[in-house]
Amino acid sequence: MTLLTSNEINVESQAIQAKKAAKILSALTTEEKNEALTILADKLEAEYKTILKANELDLANGREQNFEEAFMDRLSLTKERIYDFSKGLREVVELEDPTGDVLSNWTLENGLKVEQVRVPLGVIGMIYEARPNVTVDATGLALKSGNAIVLKGGSSAINTNKVIVDVIHQGLEETKIPKDAVQFIASTDRAATKQLFTLKEHIDVLIPRGGGALINAVVNNATVPVLETGVGNCHIYIDRAADVNKALSILINAKTDRPAVCNAAETVIVHEDWFESNVAALLSTLNDHGVSIRGDKRVLDEIPGATLAEEKDWAEEFLGLTIAMKIVKNIDEAIEHIDQYGTKHSEAIITEDKVAASTFMKHVDAAALYHNASTRFTDGGALGFGAEIGISTQKLHARGPMGLPALTTCKYLMTGDGHIR
Amino acid sequence: MTLLTSNEINVESQAIQAKKAAKILSALTTEEKNEALTILADKLEAEYKTILKANELDLANGREQNFEEAFMDRLSLTKERIYDFSKGLREVVELEDPTGDVLSNWTLENGLKVEQVRVPLGVIGMIYEARPNVTVDATGLALKSGNAIVLKGGSSAINTNKVIVDVIHQGLEETKIPKDAVQFIASTDRAATKQLFTLKEHIDVLIPRGGGALINAVVNNATVPVLETGVGNCHIYIDRAADVNKALSILINAKTDRPAVCNAAETVIVHEDWFESNVAALLSTLNDHGVSIRGDKRVLDEIPGATLAEEKDWAEEFLGLTIAMKIVKNIDEAIEHIDQYGTKHSEAIITEDKVAASTFMKHVDAAALYHNASTRFTDGGALGFGAEIGISTQKLHARGPMGLPALTTCKYLMTGDGHIR
Repeated sequence: MTLLTSNEINVESQAIQAKKAAKILSALTTEEKNEALTILADKLEAEYKTILKANELDLANGREQNFEEAFMDRLSLTKERIYDFSKGLREVVELEDPTGDVLSNWTLENGLKVEQVRVPLGVIGMIYEARPNVTVDATGLALKSGNAIVLKGGSSAINTNKVIVDVIHQGLEETKIPKDAVQFIASTDRAATKQLFTLKEHIDVLIPRGGGALINAVVNNATVPVLETGVGNCHIYIDRAADVNKALSILINAKTDRPAVCNAAETVIVHEDWFESNVAALLSTLNDHGVSIRGDKRVLDEIPGATLAEEKDWAEEFLGLTIAMKIVKNIDEAIEHIDQYGTKHSEAIITEDKVAASTFMKHVDAAALYHNASTRFTDGGALGFGAEIGISTQKLHARGPMGLPALTTCKYLMTGDGHIR
Repeated sequence: MTLLTSNEINVESQAIQAKKAAKILSALTTEEKNEALTILADKLEAEYKTILKANELDLANGREQNFEEAFMDRLSLTKERIYDFSKGLREVVELEDPTGDVLSNWTLENGLKVEQVRVPLGVIGMIYEARPNVTVDATGLALKSGNAIVLKGGSSAINTNKVIVDVIHQGLEETKIPKDAVQFIASTDRAATKQLFTLKEHIDVLIPRGGGALINAVVNNATVPVLETGVGNCHIYIDRAADVNKALSILINAKTDRPAVCNAAETVIVHEDWFESNVAALLSTLNDHGVSIRGDKRVLDEIPGATLAEEKDWAEEFLGLTIAMKIVKNIDEAIEHIDQYGTKHSEAIITEDKVAASTFMKHVDAAALYHNASTRFTDGGALGFGAEIGISTQKLHARGPMGLPALTTCKYLMTGDGHIR
């Protein structure tokens, strides 16, 4: 495949094409969009060998550059993984189409009729890292909600992504959705990504998905509005009145079930009374699951195997089998710590004390708060939203797991008969 | 009054104080907040003379700097205007408190209970120009929705605003709302405004209110999320099938009722057939109301008194008795023009043709679309929303007139009994 440099590529003209296509797409019926997604799913399955061949190129490049194993695993496709992509598209077909919904309507005393309807945002700019599944997932959610999409994936997966988009384009030719509704920026040049940041006239929202560095680069430099997703420094607070079994099983689930995801726990905050009574069980359970501890001084006194937590550890997404541990005198101290270091993603309290639980739910500022449950549930699928485009950690527009409605806005439609003020 | 320079002022520490106060404020009941707003209204009325005295200083400065009359009028207060402020606060007392509303709730198959509740955003940063009423209006809406506010008003009104906030602070001492929930940046230094742009840790949203230059400066430089408000380049499209009386009365209302506001019309687009039949009536009506025309070549052929519109006139907010006029062959050309030059605020079609109306409503991308009614209705009060914090011209979070719900976000609260994934 030939890649383009940022001089050869014209991101703005791609965005303009996407905007034109979005106009046509927004007028299609739910049935027409569903039919198109089904054709895309079929096409991806039919062309899985072509995709695997392109993936081989990326894997070979990755091996040459000595990428680490977990990274190579995320990059690597199999027939089954490609079939999972198409299964994902078929699931999006089943989701309710939010566009066209009448959100509210009323008639003013003067007879002017007011109707608020849900409409697509227009053009979504998706900036993401290695996982090629985002190419398919984001395209499916965008098209179903009537939006065009401009895709800028990570360099390490560029051959795979390019071929996936080629297959999508072939598929779209058999549908009512214009090919231009899916734009792929075929460049590994960072300058191409930067061009996306300021195309406010043509792109309605940027959604970065990936690590903190990527997300911060977009937030700090984009004038296009951004939907921030995913950085999760999640805490489990084990209160004085926590049930031991619930506390330990939730802690282990939140830390070890999938340590690399954003809803995994990174810090456990323990009430000193509970800690004194249960330190042995806590330690042996963490040991059994291979979790190493970075603790405050109090922790080190009781758990000699722990290492001393530095300031930066309280803010760290370890994304592996390490946990920070802090001992507190009371729930207020726990909430203050979360206020200071949390990323407003998911926070849990384990307690049998209803007053403590309600204080936590009321005063902690985050998208998702849990009482006696694991932070791992913050996920569109697990909470019953269907597929998600990401998990918002911001407060405006959408908070928490974002399904199709997060990709829409509204219009007020007023009908009069010569009404003036 | 002594003003501070940007070296003496610490905007960040004010924002931190606001954030702390927001925690306390967010836990107050609706009754406690209403009681506080009533006390503030009483206090403003009791202290109207103090406020007028401060206003005299700003007016004297304004005269010295030869500000134009309309500007001086916006700046100048009277007893009646101050009583209008307090009346506004009493109206906010009557509005429903959106916080605490349960937006949705469900129970997963595994028994985990999910509840989505509406909560305050936290801290609102308000950046605005001359009108001192914004100081009171924005404070009322912020406090009612449980948010702290950081106010940065225009330099020309700084003495007035400072004294208004002093009065508010005196009033707050008699209430449960901490004084620190209302912060005033007592500096005319632009560097102080710029400090607000990046205080992402402490300020949840910035709302600029004023002219296009102010709004663009905030949008282009802030890393704090922005709610864009108010720049309105609104169009009236007079279709081939427009009723003459409706067309002329709506056009005059939209252009001349209050030409300086954002929902006033700036361009009229006229179908060529209607234009040919009605040019005389159109011209005489505009003349009668003192409206001057900047038209395309076609207009100039028929209306010799018009001046030729330059490219920039199509994008101009005249905010006075000037209108741009373009003749089109069909509705598609009208929609294309609006796409190119509109600001996605308010757009109207005048027609008796239902198909044309529905095409316009479907394909024009704006917050508010009108069929046979004036764009002047895009206003929280006129549409029945109650007081508004501004009119959003963006698509994310809130679109169109923004009432109290636009100042809130949500939290997902999950209650389990040891639930793990």
